[in-house]
Amino acid sequence: MLAGGIGSRFWPMSTPDRPKQLLPLASERALIVDTLDRARTLAPLERVRILTGNHLAAPFREAISDLGDRQFLIEPAARGTGPVLAWAAFEALREDPEAVLVSLHADHRIEPIESFADLLLAAAALASRERLLLTIGVPPTRPETGYGYLQPGDTVAEHQGHAARRVEAFHEKPGVETARDYIEAGYLWNSGIFVWRADVLLEEVRAHAPEISGALQRLEAGDVEGYFDAVEPVPVDVAVLERSSRVATLPCTFEWDDVGSWASLTRTREADPAGNVTLGDATVVEGRRNVVVGDAGPVVVWGADDLVVVRTRGVTFVTPRERAPDLKSLLSRLPEALRTPEV
Amino acid sequence: MLAGGIGSRFWPMSTPDRPKQLLPLASERALIVDTLDRARTLAPLERVRILTGNHLAAPFREAISDLGDRQFLIEPAARGTGPVLAWAAFEALREDPEAVLVSLHADHRIEPIESFADLLLAAAALASRERLLLTIGVPPTRPETGYGYLQPGDTVAEHQGHAARRVEAFHEKPGVETARDYIEAGYLWNSGIFVWRADVLLEEVRAHAPEISGALQRLEAGDVEGYFDAVEPVPVDVAVLERSSRVATLPCTFEWDDVGSWASLTRTREADPAGNVTLGDATVVEGRRNVVVGDAGPVVVWGADDLVVVRTRGVTFVTPRERAPDLKSLLSRLPEALRTPEV
Repeated sequence: MLAGGIGSRFWPMSTPDRPKQLLPLASERALIVDTLDRARTLAPLERVRILTGNHLAAPFREAISDLGDRQFLIEPAARGTGPVLAWAAFEALREDPEAVLVSLHADHRIEPIESFADLLLAAAALASRERLLLTIGVPPTRPETGYGYLQPGDTVAEHQGHAARRVEAFHEKPGVETARDYIEAGYLWNSGIFVWRADVLLEEVRAHAPEISGALQRLEAGDVEGYFDAVEPVPVDVAVLERSSRVATLPCTFEWDDVGSWASLTRTREADPAGNVTLGDATVVEGRRNVVVGDAGPVVVWGADDLVVVRTRGVTFVTPRERAPDLKSLLSRLPEALRTPEV
Repeated sequence: MLAGGIGSRFWPMSTPDRPKQLLPLASERALIVDTLDRARTLAPLERVRILTGNHLAAPFREAISDLGDRQFLIEPAARGTGPVLAWAAFEALREDPEAVLVSLHADHRIEPIESFADLLLAAAALASRERLLLTIGVPPTRPETGYGYLQPGDTVAEHQGHAARRVEAFHEKPGVETARDYIEAGYLWNSGIFVWRADVLLEEVRAHAPEISGALQRLEAGDVEGYFDAVEPVPVDVAVLERSSRVATLPCTFEWDDVGSWASLTRTREADPAGNVTLGDATVVEGRRNVVVGDAGPVVVWGADDLVVVRTRGVTFVTPRERAPDLKSLLSRLPEALRTPEV
């Protein structure tokens, strides 16, 4: 489970002491607890590993106390998903030379869990048998401009009705017109959920990812800090998936959302009949499609539509819903004291 | 100085412990401090009286500590402006049979203070000499539907360039079309600022206001509680002004606002170049014409226009500016705990 980053798109509620993954953004429970439940449909709890940074380890250890210390892989430095997933593969191989890894983000919403388990177990079987690097593809439900898209090709393998299709190309976040074309052409969202054998990933890293491969000998020498010092920051998509010929996608049947902004809560959380989503102590009177969070004292919204209103102990924040996905552009303009408020 | 009512139109910032008059709504200081400064241009501080209710006396005494206890006239019960102004006249007469009263609301914005002093001193001279009941009329600057209007007639007296004109009729809050007709016809807003001799007011109460006059003997007997028990609730406009033939108006030259709602703050407080008014710890980025109050922790508004956003310790409140004047209709629908939040 990848659990890095505090999720600045949920400012001011997410902070270094309370990262996004600990917020109840997809259900009444923390995102990471939902994710752990999903992971347990695939493997026993003791095989779960949380990959996270130093600054986030303490709140996660407190929130999911049924994991042992050795189940937390703490990155000494943030270097993107490429180096950390190669490290995870290296660690898994030491325990099991046949290990299959399922890489889950700790902040996605997925429903229903049964479809997830069915598809991911098929993916694990295909990854193991066919030595494929699999990424779960999501059939788009809207011309989303915030996601990357996969272009699927021929079927390369099947397992119990699930067909893995070659990935012809990865396409970065498109404009809305291009997104419509992608949907028309049958492209899929790249969910960021990956399944592969540990040994296959490392083979492909050695073959295609010089940003990482030169540093692997440090891991072999037991020098994790040295490894993270030596690698170059790079996403696994760029380092491996866009370069390897073993990449395939399994289209999913479950609902998927990356819970990427306050605006996404109108999709991920249950709304009232007027479309308002409230968390904590929040009241909406004569308003529609608002996202309202009363995290430290009550919030009342009256007669307003399509707003995000978040009250925390540290900051109260109000913005139109359509602005929420671009929150980072606001944060860069705020003074430090506002940007990192108390929880 | 009339200082009754907590000003529910400034919910959630105004509360029984912190009435509207103690908020810095017209300048950086409390409204009542601004009003006291104006009063001191007319008479020495020891002649000022604050007319208020039991529940508000303590916060006012604390806020304006340079007034003695005897300068607070505490109404045992709220009975409208008729009974309380008759009581004030009765008390003033005991000190000075020639007393002239100037009745000021403790929550108006008036600029500049020099014009105020000039006009009110002229009004006092006219009231004393001509035995008129004077109300200050404000030349309208917009077709306001929240105010009462005066219909001025012939000039009945003059003093140093100020002409008192008979009031032909009082008109209650009009619709916007009627308000435009009133402006066209030269009507004035009824500011609620009154000037009269104490003895003349009591004469007119005895002649025209049975709601009050029958109870005056209780005051003569020193029984203030009995007086307030016996009177009927009635505004002085209805009890006396609309019935007396001694009523005249002096048109004013100063800017006047009754600071009647959150929306009025865009008129009464200095705005930034985008028209935003902020109080306390409040930041607006890429927004226009918002009223934003950070009274207990910071507030950030991004990319929104024409909103009222108020954060207090007790409640955070968001509404479109145009709704603000009608705030009472919201409050009647909120549970008690939200309606009377902590300060």
